[in-house]
Amino acid sequence: MRCLHFCKLPGRVMGIRLLRFTSVVIIVLLLVAGALTALLPNIKDDKMPNLRREPKAQSQPTLDSFTLIMQTYNRTDLLLKLLNHYQAIPHLHKVIVVWNNIGEKVPEEMWNSLGPHPVPVVFKVQAVNRMRNRLQNFPELETKAVLMMDDDTLVSAHDLAFAFSVWQQFPEHIVGFVPRKHISTPSGVYSYGSFELQNPGFGNGDQYSMVLIGAAFFHSGYLEDFQRQPEAVYALIDETQNCDDIAMNFLVARHTGKPSGVFVKPVDIRNLEKDTNSGYSGMWHRAEHLLQRSYCVNKLVNIYDGMPLKYSNIMISQFGFPNYANHKNKM
Amino acid sequence: MRCLHFCKLPGRVMGIRLLRFTSVVIIVLLLVAGALTALLPNIKDDKMPNLRREPKAQSQPTLDSFTLIMQTYNRTDLLLKLLNHYQAIPHLHKVIVVWNNIGEKVPEEMWNSLGPHPVPVVFKVQAVNRMRNRLQNFPELETKAVLMMDDDTLVSAHDLAFAFSVWQQFPEHIVGFVPRKHISTPSGVYSYGSFELQNPGFGNGDQYSMVLIGAAFFHSGYLEDFQRQPEAVYALIDETQNCDDIAMNFLVARHTGKPSGVFVKPVDIRNLEKDTNSGYSGMWHRAEHLLQRSYCVNKLVNIYDGMPLKYSNIMISQFGFPNYANHKNKM
Repeated sequence: MRCLHFCKLPGRVMGIRLLRFTSVVIIVLLLVAGALTALLPNIKDDKMPNLRREPKAQSQPTLDSFTLIMQTYNRTDLLLKLLNHYQAIPHLHKVIVVWNNIGEKVPEEMWNSLGPHPVPVVFKVQAVNRMRNRLQNFPELETKAVLMMDDDTLVSAHDLAFAFSVWQQFPEHIVGFVPRKHISTPSGVYSYGSFELQNPGFGNGDQYSMVLIGAAFFHSGYLEDFQRQPEAVYALIDETQNCDDIAMNFLVARHTGKPSGVFVKPVDIRNLEKDTNSGYSGMWHRAEHLLQRSYCVNKLVNIYDGMPLKYSNIMISQFGFPNYANHKNKM
Repeated sequence: MRCLHFCKLPGRVMGIRLLRFTSVVIIVLLLVAGALTALLPNIKDDKMPNLRREPKAQSQPTLDSFTLIMQTYNRTDLLLKLLNHYQAIPHLHKVIVVWNNIGEKVPEEMWNSLGPHPVPVVFKVQAVNRMRNRLQNFPELETKAVLMMDDDTLVSAHDLAFAFSVWQQFPEHIVGFVPRKHISTPSGVYSYGSFELQNPGFGNGDQYSMVLIGAAFFHSGYLEDFQRQPEAVYALIDETQNCDDIAMNFLVARHTGKPSGVFVKPVDIRNLEKDTNSGYSGMWHRAEHLLQRSYCVNKLVNIYDGMPLKYSNIMISQFGFPNYANHKNKM
């Protein structure tokens, strides 16, 4: 070991050596300490004891969970029955109840007295009973996905879990359980309907060009888009107290340039209308309901200066459910 | 009209005026001719008389049509029966028959004598009887889509037309009629099978992770990719005379990072094996067939250093076909 001028003086030699030795020891100790610190396991947040009990779904609200938006009018008994079911659906983040019972108190006290509940439920009191109240861009909405359900429709948890997974693969579409179509007639006037209408004539089988939002998943961004539509659209929906779903399909089709919806064939979907004590039967029982919807299709074509709806014949089911070989064939 | 110096001389005036007048007339005539030419309808190629009779599908071979590739060994009677059916499928561009009957003449003479045929059929004579002969990047292939069929499988035209339309919406996937899956065991060893195997455990219902290429549409680009795989893959397929389809699913899954296949539930798919006069029964009757395929899965995981296959539970059917309300529900 080469030693320079400061080593030459014997009187100082011992002191310098000690100093050097001590420095080396300190440096080595620091290095060892640093190495140990780097090797220690990281204490992540989720391993720390959760002192406040929070529902698990709250931690990742964006793409892994959805918000249920359910508008209700004059069927509080059905609403509460359905909430008992829907509040427990996997991947549900929150429920927003759009309260169209003007002047009537929300059942918040009763709801809280029957807690705890799996997810938060927000009751949004409305000023006017409007069909399009459910299409507001609610500030409480935190998830990318919305599940919109009519307050008389029961869809099984299995169906919903599967449809949500399908929506995650088709996030720009309305993924739901109720397909409908329009057809054009030689006069250029459109008609609205379902399987009873003739096929649009694209090959064999039937086609659909809309998926109704009363039992469907769609991207919350479309609620934002809905706020920016021509006034005539709102006027039409308010005039008919109908057709908000047709308007949404127009919006989505215009946005994507593709068929607005993806139809998932439900295994178990039920209409509980007959079970209500309120005596109130839905809008679709009105004599003019379907005619009104044809009227809406034509008005919307007018407003948007074109027919944006596109046909699809894709029907999606869940592989191996409910029976594990629902795909067996003669092969 | 102002007239400058050249107007001053009376002797030249008449001549100049005439010249100017003539120029104006000529210019006007040219403008009119130009306007007329612009207004004439465009004569497009497809409106010109087609002097040579060409099948309609030849005009746009890329995305609107597909090529059928059918490998055949020792079942010429089935091949010819199936060709009579498949040659007439809508959107078919061409048929490539991969002739694995080594040393045997292709039935080209007989085929031609029974013409005309809807599409060209090319018989590709092979040097060696190899399972992977059908996975060559044939120069005759002009379309983006390939339909690969086993020479004992009959799928209805309706199913094929629908599945082709589905492939057009999922061009990077293998879109077909026969789903299979792998499962992993606690030991890390994989097993291959179908509905009889336990579910992979992702929610309820079953899952599939492969779609067999013996009855499926896929992008012709994958045949190109297949030529660039590790040697060990070819050796495995040659050793087993099996598993080329499993290898293709590995290839596609690695390429997309998604489930390799999309399963379309067939309405009418039949195995004609028992109808053959050749007495030859397919490879899948060998006792070790399924075990071999499990073996292949594990070997491929080894070769590719990982398991790229992903699960899907999407099952696609044709809306409103065969019966126009196959989507009706209790609602």
